[in-house]
Amino acid sequence: MRAEIIAVGSELLTPYRLDTNSLFLTGELNQVGVRVVHKAVVGDDPREMQTSFRHALERAELVISTGGLGPTDDDRTRETVAELLNRKLRCDEELLRKLQERFSRFGRPMPEINKRQAMVIEDATILPNPRGTAPGLWVEARGQIVILLPGVPHELHALFASEVKPRLEKLGIRERLFTRDLRISGLFESDVEQRVSPLYAQYPDTETTILATARGIELHPRIWSADPEHAEKVLNEMTERMALALGENLASTRGENMEELVAALLAENRATIAVAESCTGGMLAERITNVPGSSAYFLGGVVCYSNELKASLAGVPAELVREKGAVSLEVASALASGIRQRTGATLGLGVTGIAGPGGGTPEKPVGLVHIALASERGVREKLFQLPGDRDRIRQFAVLNALDMVRRHFRFPPPGRG
Amino acid sequence: MRAEIIAVGSELLTPYRLDTNSLFLTGELNQVGVRVVHKAVVGDDPREMQTSFRHALERAELVISTGGLGPTDDDRTRETVAELLNRKLRCDEELLRKLQERFSRFGRPMPEINKRQAMVIEDATILPNPRGTAPGLWVEARGQIVILLPGVPHELHALFASEVKPRLEKLGIRERLFTRDLRISGLFESDVEQRVSPLYAQYPDTETTILATARGIELHPRIWSADPEHAEKVLNEMTERMALALGENLASTRGENMEELVAALLAENRATIAVAESCTGGMLAERITNVPGSSAYFLGGVVCYSNELKASLAGVPAELVREKGAVSLEVASALASGIRQRTGATLGLGVTGIAGPGGGTPEKPVGLVHIALASERGVREKLFQLPGDRDRIRQFAVLNALDMVRRHFRFPPPGRG
Repeated sequence: MRAEIIAVGSELLTPYRLDTNSLFLTGELNQVGVRVVHKAVVGDDPREMQTSFRHALERAELVISTGGLGPTDDDRTRETVAELLNRKLRCDEELLRKLQERFSRFGRPMPEINKRQAMVIEDATILPNPRGTAPGLWVEARGQIVILLPGVPHELHALFASEVKPRLEKLGIRERLFTRDLRISGLFESDVEQRVSPLYAQYPDTETTILATARGIELHPRIWSADPEHAEKVLNEMTERMALALGENLASTRGENMEELVAALLAENRATIAVAESCTGGMLAERITNVPGSSAYFLGGVVCYSNELKASLAGVPAELVREKGAVSLEVASALASGIRQRTGATLGLGVTGIAGPGGGTPEKPVGLVHIALASERGVREKLFQLPGDRDRIRQFAVLNALDMVRRHFRFPPPGRG
Repeated sequence: MRAEIIAVGSELLTPYRLDTNSLFLTGELNQVGVRVVHKAVVGDDPREMQTSFRHALERAELVISTGGLGPTDDDRTRETVAELLNRKLRCDEELLRKLQERFSRFGRPMPEINKRQAMVIEDATILPNPRGTAPGLWVEARGQIVILLPGVPHELHALFASEVKPRLEKLGIRERLFTRDLRISGLFESDVEQRVSPLYAQYPDTETTILATARGIELHPRIWSADPEHAEKVLNEMTERMALALGENLASTRGENMEELVAALLAENRATIAVAESCTGGMLAERITNVPGSSAYFLGGVVCYSNELKASLAGVPAELVREKGAVSLEVASALASGIRQRTGATLGLGVTGIAGPGGGTPEKPVGLVHIALASERGVREKLFQLPGDRDRIRQFAVLNALDMVRRHFRFPPPGRG
């Protein structure tokens, strides 16, 4: 089944707002076997809306809209679709009563304009909205389905789960989308592409999206199939061959991000961690503590921009900074061992570098970052020359620091067993 | 002039990727007087693409597409538009030569498939791409304009600036979009809406978008007008009245975010800052150091999850934590004064709270956050009960901590002058 998603709302045609609901809807639709072939964004103008819905019905069996179901005059999705399908609008008495109840539960009389939200399209199924005043509508016409949903994300999510998904599942679509979510670190997007793209031709039924984010590179191979066994077999085989091509750079085949992997590895090894960071400015600690329950293994961290604080907070000898410079392997090491010692953590991570835009020199250009990991095995350091602007350099530095922790546990030096 | 933006690419119809290019294009188009009335996302399928372009040409005078100009068989934008406009494709010899030169500059022979990128639509203006191999095309037909642009963001931005914008400016569109960008802190979206929405009816020519982000609430009033003086007058008046309605909660009328405002205020007052944070886990330091040049006023920070580190890193007495609890006004104060004292900073910020999802109690529920600001005037504390999940609670805590610095400088207690 082919679907089109229409996002209604003039604010979505400004430079400030994106239609993010369609990502949620696409994920949900794919799971019940529906492909999204087109997406549209249209303003509140009824004429524009009508052409959008008309065009959508020309190419898709299922049309889902979000937004434009509110109580104000700007909210015209109901009227537009009714007119397009030659249906009347009628006031649903039960819906009206429920709306009034909802308002009185919050101790307020229902404003007159909210009555519009009890207007429904003739012969449509009303989809009750547990989280808001705008109910959804499910309309079937000429063998096609049009579903009108509210635009407020948490209302949309709840309503989709309780009312839309069960109905779509009952359509009995046998085909499904099967996917994998691989996470890769330590390689650029083009490197990943080069290593895995030769596989694409060998699995012509599959499609793979490569995504370069601040959290690392993601690979999403996927296949549409009515045969789950076949689909899983293809994806398993493909994932195995991707794993061989990516080696130690493959961090997860289940979509875990780097801080989640590090969390699991620390817990598994009953280890704790503390950080001392300069150029990342707190982002490393922030990322680690982004995981709920991180207080079990994250002891704390220091952000030391000034050389004085490198000494007083992380115990980096002032003469070391003078001799080697604040951005040096030696200072990264001293940050890592210093914070490990001061906090008594199993692991200490130290980061120092030049995030820019200022502060670079020919010898130490913007993007140069030293990262060190101190453990009972001693200190390991790594030098990175990271691309991009200040934000990307900081993001990549954090990613690589966490990746050093992953490699520490996953790939211990030989001869320890 | 009315425009439609079409984003081409099957990966944009997955749950993983959004078309973000359209935000950039909308901003640029608005500046030269072009309104975006519709946006579409379509996959690489030539038939789907053709209906998208056909529908776009039915409703807009200007159609801009991004993507589908690469060298592979999947890249069919050129062919699709040529066919739709009944134009032939021809190989442009000069373009071919330049492509070959580009490859030899990088020391590589040009792959055979890249020749496709020298194919241009008959009578189209070629828009050279300084950053990549896919040139843009500007096609005029039946009084309409179709512009094909590459999808890679940095190529798109460069090409738009050098080739598209000057041509659009020459069209002589007199109407322009005029905007303001107000930033608000300390109020929820619904509060802001309630305070400013009565103004909307009084300025019927304007439209205002309200945006609730992790960085605060934004208000974007805007007006289309061919009369700059009139537009500026209306927006100034509207902004003034919004300022009156928002009071001390209005942080900026020029779109500065909170860390930029704090940066400017610290510089202006020749002050420095240091932070001691618990539940925000480094995010406060990260946000402050997000501003280039922040090393001039940010001395450093400590992230102390454990009570031991609250004592050893920020000098919070262990008995205070025992007596009052780690999440208390007293500990927030001790964190703020402790870090101020240890670093010698003008200002010390302390944050402690419960970000969740675990750790809440009836007396101290998830979302409870204490923030303290220590200065030469003593310590000021504030208690917040923040909504949302772990990430939002942390974001709001950071925003409110920075806002306390803003208020410290902007609204000093009376009797100091």
